[in-house]
Parts: sequence; structure tokens; C-alpha cells
Amino acid sequence: MMKKRYLTLRTLGDALTIMKTTFPPSGGSMTIPIAESEGRVASEPVYARYTVPDSSIAEMDGIAVKSSTTIGAGEQRPLALTDFVRVDTGNMIPPDYDAVIMIEDVSLEESSCIVRKAARPGQHIRPPGQDITKGDLIIPRGHQIRFSDISALATYGYDTVTVRIVRVGILPTGNELVPIGTVPGPGQVIETNSLFAASFLSRLGALCTTYPLVRDNPLQIAQALEKAVFENDLVLISSGTSAGRHDYSAETIMQLGRLLFHGVAILPGKPAMLGAIRGKPVVGLPGYPVGSQTVLREIVAPFLVSWGLAPLDEWIIRGRLARDMPSDLGFDEYVPVSAGAVNGTSWIFPHPRGSGLQMNLIRANGYLHIPLASEGWEAGAWVDIHCTSLPHQIERTLLCIGAKNPGTRQLAYALANHSVMLQTFDDLSSRALLALRKNSCHLVALTIPDLYGDIGAGYPWNDTHAVVIHLGKIPVGIVSHTGAGIADLDHLRVVHSPKGSTGRILIDRLIAAKEIGHDQMVMNSTAVKTEHAVISAVKTGIADAGISSAVHAKEAGLAFVPLTHEFHVLVARRESLEDERIQVLLQIIQSQEFRSSLEEWYTTSCTGKVEECTAESFQGSALLREGIVDPGTE
Amino acid sequence: MMKKRYLTLRTLGDALTIMKTTFPPSGGSMTIPIAESEGRVASEPVYARYTVPDSSIAEMDGIAVKSSTTIGAGEQRPLALTDFVRVDTGNMIPPDYDAVIMIEDVSLEESSCIVRKAARPGQHIRPPGQDITKGDLIIPRGHQIRFSDISALATYGYDTVTVRIVRVGILPTGNELVPIGTVPGPGQVIETNSLFAASFLSRLGALCTTYPLVRDNPLQIAQALEKAVFENDLVLISSGTSAGRHDYSAETIMQLGRLLFHGVAILPGKPAMLGAIRGKPVVGLPGYPVGSQTVLREIVAPFLVSWGLAPLDEWIIRGRLARDMPSDLGFDEYVPVSAGAVNGTSWIFPHPRGSGLQMNLIRANGYLHIPLASEGWEAGAWVDIHCTSLPHQIERTLLCIGAKNPGTRQLAYALANHSVMLQTFDDLSSRALLALRKNSCHLVALTIPDLYGDIGAGYPWNDTHAVVIHLGKIPVGIVSHTGAGIADLDHLRVVHSPKGSTGRILIDRLIAAKEIGHDQMVMNSTAVKTEHAVISAVKTGIADAGISSAVHAKEAGLAFVPLTHEFHVLVARRESLEDERIQVLLQIIQSQEFRSSLEEWYTTSCTGKVEECTAESFQGSALLREGIVDPGTE
Repeated sequence: MMKKRYLTLRTLGDALTIMKTTFPPSGGSMTIPIAESEGRVASEPVYARYTVPDSSIAEMDGIAVKSSTTIGAGEQRPLALTDFVRVDTGNMIPPDYDAVIMIEDVSLEESSCIVRKAARPGQHIRPPGQDITKGDLIIPRGHQIRFSDISALATYGYDTVTVRIVRVGILPTGNELVPIGTVPGPGQVIETNSLFAASFLSRLGALCTTYPLVRDNPLQIAQALEKAVFENDLVLISSGTSAGRHDYSAETIMQLGRLLFHGVAILPGKPAMLGAIRGKPVVGLPGYPVGSQTVLREIVAPFLVSWGLAPLDEWIIRGRLARDMPSDLGFDEYVPVSAGAVNGTSWIFPHPRGSGLQMNLIRANGYLHIPLASEGWEAGAWVDIHCTSLPHQIERTLLCIGAKNPGTRQLAYALANHSVMLQTFDDLSSRALLALRKNSCHLVALTIPDLYGDIGAGYPWNDTHAVVIHLGKIPVGIVSHTGAGIADLDHLRVVHSPKGSTGRILIDRLIAAKEIGHDQMVMNSTAVKTEHAVISAVKTGIADAGISSAVHAKEAGLAFVPLTHEFHVLVARRESLEDERIQVLLQIIQSQEFRSSLEEWYTTSCTGKVEECTAESFQGSALLREGIVDPGTE
Repeated sequence: MMKKRYLTLRTLGDALTIMKTTFPPSGGSMTIPIAESEGRVASEPVYARYTVPDSSIAEMDGIAVKSSTTIGAGEQRPLALTDFVRVDTGNMIPPDYDAVIMIEDVSLEESSCIVRKAARPGQHIRPPGQDITKGDLIIPRGHQIRFSDISALATYGYDTVTVRIVRVGILPTGNELVPIGTVPGPGQVIETNSLFAASFLSRLGALCTTYPLVRDNPLQIAQALEKAVFENDLVLISSGTSAGRHDYSAETIMQLGRLLFHGVAILPGKPAMLGAIRGKPVVGLPGYPVGSQTVLREIVAPFLVSWGLAPLDEWIIRGRLARDMPSDLGFDEYVPVSAGAVNGTSWIFPHPRGSGLQMNLIRANGYLHIPLASEGWEAGAWVDIHCTSLPHQIERTLLCIGAKNPGTRQLAYALANHSVMLQTFDDLSSRALLALRKNSCHLVALTIPDLYGDIGAGYPWNDTHAVVIHLGKIPVGIVSHTGAGIADLDHLRVVHSPKGSTGRILIDRLIAAKEIGHDQMVMNSTAVKTEHAVISAVKTGIADAGISSAVHAKEAGLAFVPLTHEFHVLVARRESLEDERIQVLLQIIQSQEFRSSLEEWYTTSCTGKVEECTAESFQGSALLREGIVDPGTE
């Protein structure tokens, strides 16, 4: 079978226009219990079955009187009434009585009642129909039902309400997929796009039916698709993530109806397609979850709103980009971001864009839309982001720049239990410290090699306005399959280490000391951008050995021989020590429980010590060492 | 039994503090299908069961190669590979292969493949764990689950999730209440507070149990309350609207435990109370629905959030008050309002405050909180309102000032079908026209007596920047039980008509013409503020006759003898004819369907004519008449 290419990409705007004009509003209605109707859209106007109140009702506790009998009563001229009825708030007013006098204003005697003020006709009485008259409109067609509406509908005589629905059939396909609840084998993926579609679209008011997973077999797909089209108003066919040779969605649509477009200029979500079968819309969803979710949110949901379903709430906040945000012209792009408030400004950090990376959506508290006519923005630009968490959760977000490490990871876990979200974004330490100085992040996570006394002075954190919070001390050494030590290095292929890392400094020193020859180096430090790349090169056999921290070696199951240490610290602005979130962070770091949770990784578990952030303070601390190898290790 | 008074009122802030400190976080957790978990709060951190992807995966369609075999390949030096595997996006990379070359960049031949560029190790491959590693945190404790989280939880191995719950027992009491689905008898009210509480608190994540309605019987209430306290973490006891002598909630709480407060300085909602029984909180809700809903939203919901349930979204918009908004010092007051955007500014109109008036909540698209230390604000002040409709619905709101009439009511119904909300607020026509000039409303609804040629000139709508839209012409005449005509008036007790009304002008003329004597007038026009008061006075026999429009007479089932007409018109600013919502309005008014819907009321059904708003245009129209009685009537 031939490799299929996208037909001409449609812009998102064109795709929506084609969809809306090809398929004018359809769908149906369904009568549901009012208790379940919140967020639904009434398909017909609803009129009151009863007048409320149905009769005159006392608005106060007191006595019901005939106002004409009270004429002339006054402070100086009390009147004794015998024709009255004791009533409480909510009681019906007996016929012929037309006013209520508050109980506080009368003196009840045995068979009479003293009043000191004439009653105005209608006084303290809720007249019939004060709230609503039988036959009056309660809610119009198209009204999105709120909790208060449910109560009112019940009061005016309803226990059910007829709401708009669109029947949506969801058809997952793909050889590599297994259903939720199944343990995936090697290379298998749990099929979750149909679950997302069903839960998300149900919230809009769609009545979703998910069909059994179909393999990449053209005949089976065609049969399942025909059935789904027959039984629904709109069908979603979700491809496997394995597109290419086994993507039968487009050709099945062409076989059963017509393909209106294949490919939309939207990132992620480009493989989206639209067909018409028996006059009904069939949307092809991309296989990767993030792409699929984007197509559902940006194409399917607005289309269903045009068919009368309820739009979802959408929170937008304005903030400043912490990073450059380039984007391809001609694509509507959606980038998961995290916003956090630093000193009153929301700073926005992008997460990696990747259609298969669901964790970035989980970590994100919003997304940024870069319109097709934009090439993106530079760092510092003010942009609007769409929130995916409630604003109060964004208020509880701490932004940290620097390398992820066991200390910050455990800290993030512990902070989450106190409703503080610690989000860490990779960057060079020099740029991270600059961001801290510019007040565009809360914290910087630094790794400080325990190698040179003068390294502290070389770092730009020499700043009396900042403080250093110690997390722990972690071994750095040789990783290999064989357990190679420093004496073995001279005959091994050694992978370089990323610039600025403890490994890089060690390797430079080892080369200078001729412990390693230049020809032994199999990759240069420009190609090796992360410690994971070091581990990967050793693990796959591209190199025999490399320098990395014990953490990564352990995670990869590689042998490790320690050479020295590095320190994991956080740097914060001094004034942020007043911040309630930072105080929670310090309490956690200084707790015994937190220290214990780090013992697995750190030689010297976290001290939680807060120090002046000056070169001197580091020189005075345990950071001062001589030579390459710290003899005190292990 | 003695009349009970509120104990000292607590401020809202104190009430919440007492509640939170007396009852530290409790409640439990429940494992539910992830498909139903949106909006819920995870009660425990959730860690990945699988590494995703579990192995190296092709990121592109192409061929998997060993990168080492491609070294040296170039445009000028194509290499023929025999050791490769065809892969599509999502496929597993076979062992020993470490790179993918895109299908576009290779020439596939029978058993070999030509490559023109060296492959970088790892190129176009998603490494294992790129998304998540087994054991990594997916969501922390306290995380409010979103649709994307559901998908991720499924991908990483879960089909259920454990969420926080609080078991809430809801106990409705009250003699005058009947359950939903019952036809209420005279003086009976359908019990809806438990329905509101259950649907609203369920959305926060509470597990609600509503107990059968209990009559106002102390023993039965005590038994039901004991059972509810035993079975739940928190109990709500909802009083009947009939408080006073039959309010047993407080004494039952005192009997079974202790009463912490009775009465909160919150409007509506003042009768709220809090008790402790077996160490569990028992909240007494007011009987009136609006009060009950306010206590649930302002006291119970924040308390449940302090126990770990999810807060609800809250939209706030800023706008200007169209009316003075006085408020009692010392009360936190919540006023239902409607906001509408006029020329870019949100203008905010209060609805009547009344704890029994649910329709005001339905009509409102938001509410205003007036803090206890505030005496309210004057018209024109900028205030924040809490939206109860989505902002796009507020954008579709048209604000109309003036008297409600059949034309504007039918228009509101018809506009609602086009998702335009026409909201009418009572005011004097002079003030309404001033508001239009100040751009704080979209439309003015005027009633113009068809009496004087010069009346047009007397109205302040002589404004070439405004236009008049004709709705219809409606008879005005004598209302009575007996069918009294003009000749009968001299011996009847006649009720006055409100200032500025057609009836008032007629009566003044009739008195001047000595058709009615001063001594025949039973109420003065200051006491009679609305046409409903006229009808009410005649209906209850306070007067024998009055002057009103045919509409009110018909609604009240009174006899009617026409004397003249009045015109119902809308006035709008000329530039607003460009507004899409006003265009929808004009299309409706000019439709045959709409005219037909008005035939029931109007002699000359709506013409939909749009005229210059000048005295001259009115003098040139059918408004010019001579004498008191229009001989052409009927």
C-alpha cells in the first residue's frame, strides 16, 4: 500500500467554517431529571406550571388583620382588635385579611390584640404570583442550566427538563492499542483517546457511545464506522498512533462517503480529518493524545457549540513569557505552559511541545495559543494564556529554574501535599540566576561541583540579596557496564559530559592530567547536552564509560564508582523568605521526614540550612576542596 | 411554645472561623472510575504503573538503522544499507537499531536502501520513559482532576482513582412542604432546598444523601437528625419557610448536642445556624430558597473546601452600577444583578432582593457582594460582580429600562431563541431616557398615552440621536367588577393611577371635567405606585373602579371598558442599529410571527417601524388625537 500524504492543510479557521457550513445544526433532545441537568442547555422554553406563591403569604411572624379595622391606630391611640389571626412567616393569609402586623409591634392579650399603628393594605404580605405566575417563562430555549435554575424549575412544577443532546459515536482503531484496564505488552499503548473524548464531550452535553477497539483492518473499520454513523449524529474515529502504512481512516471515509479535508494547520493535531457519511460529520482524530485532545477542544467542541451544546468555561490570564516562544507561520499552535505569580506578575514558562507527552499537560496549568499569522514571541512579551487549573492553583505555583534533581523532585511531592506546586524548568545556571535577579522565577536549582575552592566565586550568585538553601550532597563518578574505576579509563571509549557539569570539569581535568587521551572521547560535549545523554551513550554501548551522578547511574542500572561530590542547592531572593509558599518550603526541607526521604540519594542528606548567597559563605562551607578526587568519598 | 429570637448574629467571617476551628478537616475518600473523576480531588498521590513509552518508539515513518552504519553518508556519497527495518510512527524500534531516517529522505530499493546523510544516534526515536517512568508521580494529593489528567491516568495504568469525599446528609423539614413531583395544594410549597444542596455540593465532591421530608414535630426531627448525623460527616437541616413557632431546628440541636451559633449577619440567609452533634457539624439552612442557596455558597462550600473538596470556578467581572445600591452596615449582603455590555462598559442592574424570589436568580447573570463594612455604593460606582452565567452570555445581554409590557415580554422570549437576553428594569421614563443618553442601557421601553398631540413634545426623547421602534397600540379604559363605563363613574369609589401614566392623565381630566368628584377618590396617586396597585384595589374592593390598560384587566379577570389607547415603543440610540443584537431584535419585531404573537394584546399589532425620535415624528404619526376619548376605539 502506498504511503499516504496529507492533502493540502486547511487552516483551523477554514476547517471550522467547512465543518459548520457543511453540517448545519442537528442533534436532538432528551428529557433528564433536573437533578442531573446542571450545565445542560434547555432545548425548549420552560413555562411555570404553578403560580408562586399561589396565595397571599405572611412575610413576617405576626398577626393578619383587615387593614380597614386599624385606621386611626397610633402610639397615643392604641386600638384593641378582636378580628385577627396569628400567622408565622410562610403561612397563608386567611381570606378577607389584607395586612400583617409584625409580632414585635403588637401586644397579644387573651382574646384581643393591641395595635399602635395603622396597617397599610398588603403590608408584610407576599401577594400571589410575586415570584412567578403560572404560564410565565422560567428559562428560554438555549438557556444553560445552573444550580439555581434547578431549584426554580422544581419550585415551579418540574422534576425533569428537556435538554439538547448530540449523539457522538467514538470509534478507536489501532493495532498497538489495548483497552483501559489491560496490562500493555511491549510496544503496546493503552487506548485513552476515546475516554478523553467521552468525558470531555459529555461535559458539553454530548451523549457519547464508545465502540469496541478495532484493529487496523480496512473491512472491520468500514463495518464499525457504518454502524457508528448509523447510530449517532457525529462520529469520531480515533487513529492509532501508528499512522503511515496502516492509517485506514481516510480511505474508509472516502469509500463510505466523502473526505472534506485531511490535515489541519494546527499543532499538535495536524492529522485531523473531516468526512461526510450519510450526511453526518465524521472527524478523524490524531492518534497521539495531546494532538487528539487539541482537535477535540479546538474543532469538535466549537462545532458542537454551533449545534447548540454548552460552551465550557474558559479562564484567561495575562502574563509575561519567561522564554522565547518561536512558532511556525501558518500554523495555529497550542503550547502547554505553566504560569506562576512572582512579585505580582504572572511569568509563563512553556513545557516541551510533543504530541505524545501527556505529562506536560498534567504539569501545565494553562496553554498558549500562537495564531497562524504569528511567528511567536520573544521572552518578556505579554501574552494571554488559557488556564487549565483554577486561578487559585496558579497563585500557589512556585517557579524554579535549573536542573531537576532528587531533592527538588521530593520537594515538589511534599509541597503538593501543602497545595504548593513547585515546577522546575531546565536552563543553564547562569541564565537561571539572571531570571531570579529579574524576578521572573521564585527559585533556582543549582548543582555545585565539590571540586574547586574558587568555583563559588565564578558563579554569578554572589549576591547579598539572595540566600542559598542546602538540599544535599550527592556522589559523582564513573558510570559503566563493567564497574570501571579511574585506573581503567585509559583504555576505554569515554563519552563527554555536558558543558558546565561536574562531569565536564572532571573530564577536562582528566584529559589535562593525561588520564584520558583525546582519541578516547567518542562524542563531544556539544553533542552531549544532558546527563541522560551520557547515561544513554554508556547504556547503548556507544561509549564504555562516562561521568555522571550516582542518581542517574542508579536509575539506569549501571555500575558506579564515585570520584567526588556535587551539592544540590536552591537559591531564592532574600525577600521571598517572607512569602508563605517559601515558608512552607523551608518547613518541609527542615523536617526530619523530608531528610529521610532523601537518604536514598544523598550522602549527606539535606541540611535545610539557609545561608547568605556570597562566595565567602560557600568558601566557608563544606564546598572548599582541593584536587580532583575528594578522598573522603564513601 | 415561646417565640424564638436569633441569638447574637455572627458575622460571616466569624461564622466561618468558628466552623473551621471547631471542626478540623475530616471526611474520607472513595475509589471511583477515572471517567467520572473530572473536578474531583485526588486523596492520595498517584504514581505511574508503567514507563511510557516502554521501549524506543519511532517518532516518524521511515527506516530504523544502526547509526554507526551510516557514518560518512552524504549528498555526494550515498550509502546503500541492507541492515534496516521499515517502521512507522509509533512502532517499536527493534533491538540494536538506534536511529530512524525519515521515509522522505531515503530511496527504498528491493533489498537495500539508499541514505544520503549520516544518522545521529537516537534520531527520530522516542526513548523509553520520554513521557514518564514507572513510579514517577502523576498527580499529587490534593490535585483537582481535569480531563487531560483522566487520559494520562489511564495511559499510566489506572482505571480508577481515589478521591476525597465528604458524606453530607440533607434533612428537609417543614409542614408546608411537599416533595418534588407532587402537586402542591393551597399554601403548600415544593421542597427544593435539598435538591439544590445535593446537586451543588455533589459538584464540589460531596457524597450527598437526602433524607425523607420530616414534619414540624420535635420528636421526629430529633430521630431523623440523629440518624443523619450517625451516617454522615456533615449534616444540613433545612427549615421550612415557616419559621416562628414551628422552628424546631435550634432546639433539636441543643437537645442532641450544642448550638454554636444561630443567626449570621448575611443577607439573604440570616437564620443560618451551626451545631455540633457527636463532634460533627450540623448546619441549619434557612427555609427560603435564596437564603438557603446563599448559606450553602458562602458558608458550607468554603467549609467543605477547607476539608479538601474542590472549590468551584468563579468568574468576576468589573462594571459600573446603574442604580444606587444601599446596604445595611454590619451585614454581608449578596444582591442578584444583571450585567450587560453597553458600548464596551459593563453596566450592572440590581434585581429586587427577596429571599423567596427565585426568578430573580434566574434572570440575574451575577451577584454583587456588599461587605459588612460597606453601606453600599452610589450609581456609577465601579464594582466587581461574581458571574452566574458565562461571560459570553453576559455579552449577549440587552439592558432595557422602563415598564414591562406584553411587547417587551414577547420580545424577550423571541430574542432568547436567538441567544440574546433582553432584561427589563423598571424606572421612570425620564430617568430611563437619561440612562440611554448616558449610554448605561441599550433600550428604553416607553408607554405613550394616545391623548395629546403635544405630549410628544413634553417627553425628553426629542433627540435626533435616538430612534423609536413601534411595538403596538393597546386599549386603556375603566376596570371594575361591574363593567362600569364613563357614565357610571360619578357614583363609584375610584382609585387613582400612578404618576405619569395614561390613567393619571385621564383621571385628572375627568376630575377637571367634573365627571369624578374629589371625594370619590379612595387612594391618592402617591400611594398608588404601579398599575398592579390599581388592579389590586379594584379586585379587593378598596375601590369600585380605576383606569388601567386592557392587559392588566384581562390578567386580573376584571371587566374593561376602553376609553383610549397607549402606545408601547422602544427607544434606542441611533448608532446601536449597527449592533448585531439590535439587528436581531429588529428582524424579530418586523417578522409576521412576532406580530401574530402580540395580537392577543394589541389593537394595532406591532408595526416594527423605526422612526426618528423627534416630537415632530410623533406628531406626524397616529399619536395625534383630540379630546379625552378616542372615538375610533374598538
